Amino acid sequence: MIPSHGKPAVVLLSGGLDSATTLAVARSEGYRLHALSIDYGQRLRVELEAARRVACFLGVAEHRVIRVELRAFGGSALTGAAEVPKDRTAAELGEGIPATYVPARNTVLLSCALAWAEVLGAFDLFIGVNAIDYSGYPDCRPEYIRAFETLANLATRAGVEGAGRFRVRTPLIDKTKAQIIRLGLSLGVDYGLTHTCYDPPADGRACGRCDACLLRRRGFAEAGIADPIEYAA
Amino acid sequence: MIPSHGKPAVVLLSGGLDSATTLAVARSEGYRLHALSIDYGQRLRVELEAARRVACFLGVAEHRVIRVELRAFGGSALTGAAEVPKDRTAAELGEGIPATYVPARNTVLLSCALAWAEVLGAFDLFIGVNAIDYSGYPDCRPEYIRAFETLANLATRAGVEGAGRFRVRTPLIDKTKAQIIRLGLSLGVDYGLTHTCYDPPADGRACGRCDACLLRRRGFAEAGIADPIEYAA
Repeated sequence: MIPSHGKPAVVLLSGGLDSATTLAVARSEGYRLHALSIDYGQRLRVELEAARRVACFLGVAEHRVIRVELRAFGGSALTGAAEVPKDRTAAELGEGIPATYVPARNTVLLSCALAWAEVLGAFDLFIGVNAIDYSGYPDCRPEYIRAFETLANLATRAGVEGAGRFRVRTPLIDKTKAQIIRLGLSLGVDYGLTHTCYDPPADGRACGRCDACLLRRRGFAEAGIADPIEYAA
Repeated sequence: MIPSHGKPAVVLLSGGLDSATTLAVARSEGYRLHALSIDYGQRLRVELEAARRVACFLGVAEHRVIRVELRAFGGSALTGAAEVPKDRTAAELGEGIPATYVPARNTVLLSCALAWAEVLGAFDLFIGVNAIDYSGYPDCRPEYIRAFETLANLATRAGVEGAGRFRVRTPLIDKTKAQIIRLGLSLGVDYGLTHTCYDPPADGRACGRCDACLLRRRGFAEAGIADPIEYAA
């Protein structure tokens, strides 16, 4: 688990299953890994702890956590006081935009990744978005990602000086949760280090009933693999 | 100077001449004004004070200051320790990207504005970028602004649910500094409340020699109007 010494890449790392897998993919391609976690005032401080564990385990060159006060705006069950939905059916999970959507989150995350990349001289941004088992977030769609790539190349020195071309890499975008899990295991990810639950009980286990837990559990079940984390329900 | 009660707009407000003028334009169009200042760790705390004065003077419905730790990345004379360039000639001001460029700044600013707009149900984002007397920043160009607009409409609930279309309004983009100053004065802006200097001396005056001071002074001179602020040099 030594840091690689290839081209630099900035990898957004929430500490969940998808971002841990994305980090492992970037590592397998030989990038020098600069992991970025954004503390946007989420209820889930445990997510940031998971991000630190995963970054350490996968041997990143550097892991930074920066604060962005999105919480001040409200508008999401993940940053405000609204209830996290529970026990939704598979059909409900596939419909509409849930209360856990954080307004413009991926745009803010990618913007910060772009700022760091520009300072590092990195042109590859990795983000673990997924358009299949994705809970209906608008900023996980391929057309959104392509639009950000276009923006990044206009927004920066590189866009003017022609030093390179930014790419937003989304290795999970067309995979099911089961495929993501199999991929991560093949790359040595320890999913016991990750944190997925939107609404963990005080004992630190996962709730097992929020959208994120339901998608994760379904993924492990479909992959025929035991999930190493503990669930309250 | 009473707040207007029209459609909501989010207006990015740095406290400088351009953003104060932009706020006045939005006000003249009858918007309910939600002014947003980002504390990205700039050296210029006085900028945020100026933003508060301007917001108050122009009667906004609400003014928020949120922290985004861009300073942690470095890469700019405005957030790091590098020297702010001084006494550059008109030809030098028009060439290349200066040391005061903050990596991906406008992308981060607009992303935060988009997040707040989505919570407010606002679809108009105002930013005082300028492609004429603009110091060579890549993220002030019209093609960059159009790319952000495209992104905004893919990134959000509105992009999926069709509730409205985001517009990035740039009323100053094709104006010279002199034209901006005349416009602002016609709309009642008090430029004595604004702060422009990149490197103010300890006595609180403007340095008079950084790119921002030089562009401002040239603008007032071209407009044939006395600048109400004091300069050290």
